Amino acid sequence: MPSLPNSVDTALRQRAARVVPGGMWGHLNAARLPEGYPQFFARSEGCHLWDVDGNEYVDLMCSWGPIVLGHHHPKVEAAVRRQATAGSCMNGPGAVMVELAEKLVATVAHADWAMFQKNGGDATTSCVTIARAGTRRRKVLAARGSYHGSAPWCSPSLVGVTAEDRAHIVHFDYNDIASLEAAADQAEGDLAAIIVAAFRHDLARDQELPTPEFAARVRAICDATGAALILDDVRAGFRIHAGGSWEPLGVRPDLSSWSKAIANGHPLAAVTGNDRFREAAASVFVTGSFWCEASSMAASLATLEAMEEEGAIARMTAMGQRLRDGLAGLAADNGIGLRQTGPVQMPMVLFDDDPDFVRGELFCATAIRHGAYLHPRHNMFLSAAHTAADIDRVLAAAAAGFAAVRQAG
Amino acid sequence: MPSLPNSVDTALRQRAARVVPGGMWGHLNAARLPEGYPQFFARSEGCHLWDVDGNEYVDLMCSWGPIVLGHHHPKVEAAVRRQATAGSCMNGPGAVMVELAEKLVATVAHADWAMFQKNGGDATTSCVTIARAGTRRRKVLAARGSYHGSAPWCSPSLVGVTAEDRAHIVHFDYNDIASLEAAADQAEGDLAAIIVAAFRHDLARDQELPTPEFAARVRAICDATGAALILDDVRAGFRIHAGGSWEPLGVRPDLSSWSKAIANGHPLAAVTGNDRFREAAASVFVTGSFWCEASSMAASLATLEAMEEEGAIARMTAMGQRLRDGLAGLAADNGIGLRQTGPVQMPMVLFDDDPDFVRGELFCATAIRHGAYLHPRHNMFLSAAHTAADIDRVLAAAAAGFAAVRQAG
Repeated sequence: MPSLPNSVDTALRQRAARVVPGGMWGHLNAARLPEGYPQFFARSEGCHLWDVDGNEYVDLMCSWGPIVLGHHHPKVEAAVRRQATAGSCMNGPGAVMVELAEKLVATVAHADWAMFQKNGGDATTSCVTIARAGTRRRKVLAARGSYHGSAPWCSPSLVGVTAEDRAHIVHFDYNDIASLEAAADQAEGDLAAIIVAAFRHDLARDQELPTPEFAARVRAICDATGAALILDDVRAGFRIHAGGSWEPLGVRPDLSSWSKAIANGHPLAAVTGNDRFREAAASVFVTGSFWCEASSMAASLATLEAMEEEGAIARMTAMGQRLRDGLAGLAADNGIGLRQTGPVQMPMVLFDDDPDFVRGELFCATAIRHGAYLHPRHNMFLSAAHTAADIDRVLAAAAAGFAAVRQAG
Repeated sequence: MPSLPNSVDTALRQRAARVVPGGMWGHLNAARLPEGYPQFFARSEGCHLWDVDGNEYVDLMCSWGPIVLGHHHPKVEAAVRRQATAGSCMNGPGAVMVELAEKLVATVAHADWAMFQKNGGDATTSCVTIARAGTRRRKVLAARGSYHGSAPWCSPSLVGVTAEDRAHIVHFDYNDIASLEAAADQAEGDLAAIIVAAFRHDLARDQELPTPEFAARVRAICDATGAALILDDVRAGFRIHAGGSWEPLGVRPDLSSWSKAIANGHPLAAVTGNDRFREAAASVFVTGSFWCEASSMAASLATLEAMEEEGAIARMTAMGQRLRDGLAGLAADNGIGLRQTGPVQMPMVLFDDDPDFVRGELFCATAIRHGAYLHPRHNMFLSAAHTAADIDRVLAAAAAGFAAVRQAG
């Protein structure tokens, strides 16, 4: 029980409180989670995690997205070892950069080229910079509540951010064509880009797939104005469709940002683009000390290959459906209203009549004691390492969670 | 000879030209270097690099800073393997995050706390955000020409950048107290921070150490106004003084940004701060998908420990002095005016009467054919892996370079 006073986790939190502001920053801060969630982890294997007190969990967060084939995938780790043994951070990239760019161009439908970074936010910010360079315009339309990174122009927090950081961001509501058109009108003559998440996966609300009409209208406005359609595939990328998350809609972006699942947990991000923005992409100065690190690129190439070989998206989808069906059955058995939204491989699970997430937190706090790591307010992630047995273990933990919610009334 | 038409490097560049805008982005683009410099690297060991054609170089760029103990340092790589085998990118940090934060607090003189990121630019941007949060002000003073990253607020390029991205940046000239005071006056009442590089290490100009008067005035203005003194130690950090590059001056910052050398080539950055900005640091939302990756933190802890054990800074300094003395002697022998500036462990080597860097480029193009990887316009970096024999090989290559410059007249 990691929250026990004499746990290793608690001792580490106390030490961290002295040397890290607030004990932990950002989205991995366990203080945002119900009691019983560990802050510190010791070990991982496949879709299983062990905290520093030795508690084991079937994990449904996948490190908030990056782990797409399971921890320690043999082919990925072998590729990393091979590259790292040769050389990783050198005075220029390894040949693997070219191989990976070629692989992305071959895989991602809209892509004529690729560039690499470290953070998803590097990729989204680079897309915006490239779009502005290519159009010589300034305004960027972004959906209210969509997460595109923690840089000042897009952070969900305004603390330490100035009004000017967002002077040229015009907001609209995802899937709301009228608000999209109003935003485009507001930017008239100065529209550089529309940036859209692959689907609506905002924190603490039901997920929404883009409607075909919305996606088509985003494309049409970009076509009519010459603005760039930026698809932010950082979170959803490689879990919906290998060619890009809007391929099933038949709508192709001009620029896409990728990270998270691209290298199965190794730090990498990418921008892909079409030829219309090639010159603009070559004209901007975006760079970082570790952006050419060859090990993470080798990890990415092996990840993309292994995902194809293993039919990873189909496997995640099947296990996500098993989870969704199982949770729906358990909720019904307990007479509990549950909303499961978004793609099954990136599930959001929210309780009816639960404005303060009290039920969701009780559900998760119970489930984690039974060995399932779920999230009460953020979308979760399946990986290709999840088996039917893993999902069934999650469902057994969830059954305890639903019982607790029912008993609490 | 990597520039030969039938070289592996050339073939890779041709492939890259199709799938990467401009063939390569940013500071590692070999198109910015004289003919004969390879773009792609195959292998590294200690301070030696091998390009994809098998040519070997004694390297004086150290991957533009990160490699501080030499490639494949056994203790660092063992620590990475240990951590990676257990788990790296998980749902929260490993215990190593606490150990590393404690190590930085114990090592860095001004530090009461630490936070971690991936890019140097993440660290400088986080410092600015924290300073604004802590002061509830907006203006940031930055030296004209100083490099603090490639984010829109600080990129050396304005392509794709809007005026508003820099609305609150006020420029001054490094080491120029009058211009510093004028900038501070301009920001009056709204001064959040002064950000300064550890020393003036701008591209393509003589380096300058901060004068004691300048450093003291920066501190005094911050003290008088309540602004944060941000020391950008991304490039110089851990090569001048383990406690922070302004320790020899006796001037302590409120916030520092670190990256490059912090983990001997593994991707990591850090912000350290004092207690005055602890609450502000806890109040901002800055995060990234891989910022808790434990392998790079294990690399950093091992790097900082190994640097102490090996007296790395003293070794770099001794080898840097050997290089500087040797180059000065060779230049004098050839009757060539040479300016060597900045700390010897981060040398800038520029030729007199060379406004277009023609001499510098000829010198470097000759030296690389003789197996020494130098840079004609950017500061270079020593590592603790450079031996006297390595430096002497560089000097032999440099002798050929000086002869070429002399013959060219």
